[in-house]
Amino acid sequence: MDILFLGTSAGAPTRQRNVSALALLPDQGSAWYLIDCGEATQHQLLNTPLSVHGLQAIFITHVHGDHCYGLPGLLASAAINGRKTPLQIIAPAGIQAWLEATHAMSESFLPFELQFIAVEEMKSWQDHTVTVQATMLSHRVPSFAYRFTENHTEAVLDTARLQAEGVPAGPLWGRLKKGEDILHEGKTLSSADYLHYPYPLRGIIVGGDNDQPDLLREASAKAQVLVHEATYTIEIAEKVGERVQHSSAAAVASFAASAGVSNLVLTHFSARYQADSEKSPCISEIQAEAEAHYQGNLFLAEDFARYRLDKTGVLSKLA
Amino acid sequence: MDILFLGTSAGAPTRQRNVSALALLPDQGSAWYLIDCGEATQHQLLNTPLSVHGLQAIFITHVHGDHCYGLPGLLASAAINGRKTPLQIIAPAGIQAWLEATHAMSESFLPFELQFIAVEEMKSWQDHTVTVQATMLSHRVPSFAYRFTENHTEAVLDTARLQAEGVPAGPLWGRLKKGEDILHEGKTLSSADYLHYPYPLRGIIVGGDNDQPDLLREASAKAQVLVHEATYTIEIAEKVGERVQHSSAAAVASFAASAGVSNLVLTHFSARYQADSEKSPCISEIQAEAEAHYQGNLFLAEDFARYRLDKTGVLSKLA
Repeated sequence: MDILFLGTSAGAPTRQRNVSALALLPDQGSAWYLIDCGEATQHQLLNTPLSVHGLQAIFITHVHGDHCYGLPGLLASAAINGRKTPLQIIAPAGIQAWLEATHAMSESFLPFELQFIAVEEMKSWQDHTVTVQATMLSHRVPSFAYRFTENHTEAVLDTARLQAEGVPAGPLWGRLKKGEDILHEGKTLSSADYLHYPYPLRGIIVGGDNDQPDLLREASAKAQVLVHEATYTIEIAEKVGERVQHSSAAAVASFAASAGVSNLVLTHFSARYQADSEKSPCISEIQAEAEAHYQGNLFLAEDFARYRLDKTGVLSKLA
Repeated sequence: MDILFLGTSAGAPTRQRNVSALALLPDQGSAWYLIDCGEATQHQLLNTPLSVHGLQAIFITHVHGDHCYGLPGLLASAAINGRKTPLQIIAPAGIQAWLEATHAMSESFLPFELQFIAVEEMKSWQDHTVTVQATMLSHRVPSFAYRFTENHTEAVLDTARLQAEGVPAGPLWGRLKKGEDILHEGKTLSSADYLHYPYPLRGIIVGGDNDQPDLLREASAKAQVLVHEATYTIEIAEKVGERVQHSSAAAVASFAASAGVSNLVLTHFSARYQADSEKSPCISEIQAEAEAHYQGNLFLAEDFARYRLDKTGVLSKLA
């Protein structure tokens, strides 16, 4: 499972970072899921291999503009590009009314159906590949995290047993691996007896804006990766005050350490943080603060950075 | 007066061209006007010297998303950047209700006032620098052109007369040029007697989507520059059919020639046109079609191209 960041800035875009959006890609095929859709997400997509035709569903964490103002344009361009298949949008209920008002205002008629699911009422969402569950967070407006868990892990064939039982390597092994039962020397061999599943079901949590990471403790027990906002360092967070209800790098890192999350990706950085280490405040201050509280596998997201969660549960950045 | 293109693509952005937006800049100062505001206009602004603090007013030609979906994000970022002064938005009436619905949905509270003027009811709009008049066009939805006319042209001092009358060059000349009357050798010299205005009041028309350029005939008589969509060549326009109600390059160029418009800038090109002359259809086909019908000063706009209309009424592209 891959995570491809399309925007990593909080509130407003910068020249280096767009506002929030993230693509989640299963291991195979052209299917993908979009989590949040800040303005110009469709522009970011032009610089990736992702197509609106492969988009399975859109998940919106909360109604703030930097997480959803890109929806009307993305949908309009999907229409121009010939999308016909229905598209599910899982979002706070207000998003549906707003998109309908937007389409009425601009006299837009999409050639595909939008199917809205209000996240407030969603128990879980599922397709062939993943199951998604939402957790309510703490922010100025209702905000949610989405945990994506794969439905199946890779099956591994018990080749030692097959060799011991004299089943020759070749097409028979392939059929067993695919889940078919086979006939061998007059005996039926059941696929289930020769398959095992040594890998965990992988889980990735993508959080919305949130000032209480601890709300993700239960969800984190079943996930290898936490993607969470770390809008500021403690120093800036204290200057800004409580009203904005964001997390500091220290707060998220401490939580991830205590919850035993093995891979942590921070994102949604205040636009005041500079990429250039000569300038202050610099993004490296967020990194240093997080490292002081978390010894796991830590990343600070950048636009277009792509991370791969391998089948053993280790996350690494692709070159 | 300068024109700075922020987006020149029709319908959807491409990697080279964003959707519609254009800045109009008076000769001096940091003031500017925005005409249309497609998605990611605020992103384009990050790559220009323009600041949201200098923005005097926004003019929207029509309600299609590629001309207005960037408004909510631009306004949000103006708020983040500390704008406090009221902002006027001249637009079809539906835009006001939509922005209000958008702000209600996203719980956005701007720290500056939005003052809406429905273009359908606008006689003319004026500030210290320009007067703006709207002309209704022909499109699938009500669409307008805005003609910007400067309120004053440069005053030129009658230096020959001053020399003949023995008024020495220096501070006295400067005060006369600024409009002050002066005392010279016991006589009051009236500024008005020594100033003349040899240059025309410059006028620039920026059209919205439109399939009947001739609707701009009357407005064009008072303008040196026409900025107009030329979405396709005739060949593609005929394939697309009448329903989209856009203009071909030939139609706009023929109109500009017959109306005696001395500078024509084409924009809003279908995303199908490629920049690369090896590929087809290529943007050079639009240029060739326009040149066949128009012998004036012709430009095909590109994102970030900046054009200067000098005081004599000649438009040139800045390097």
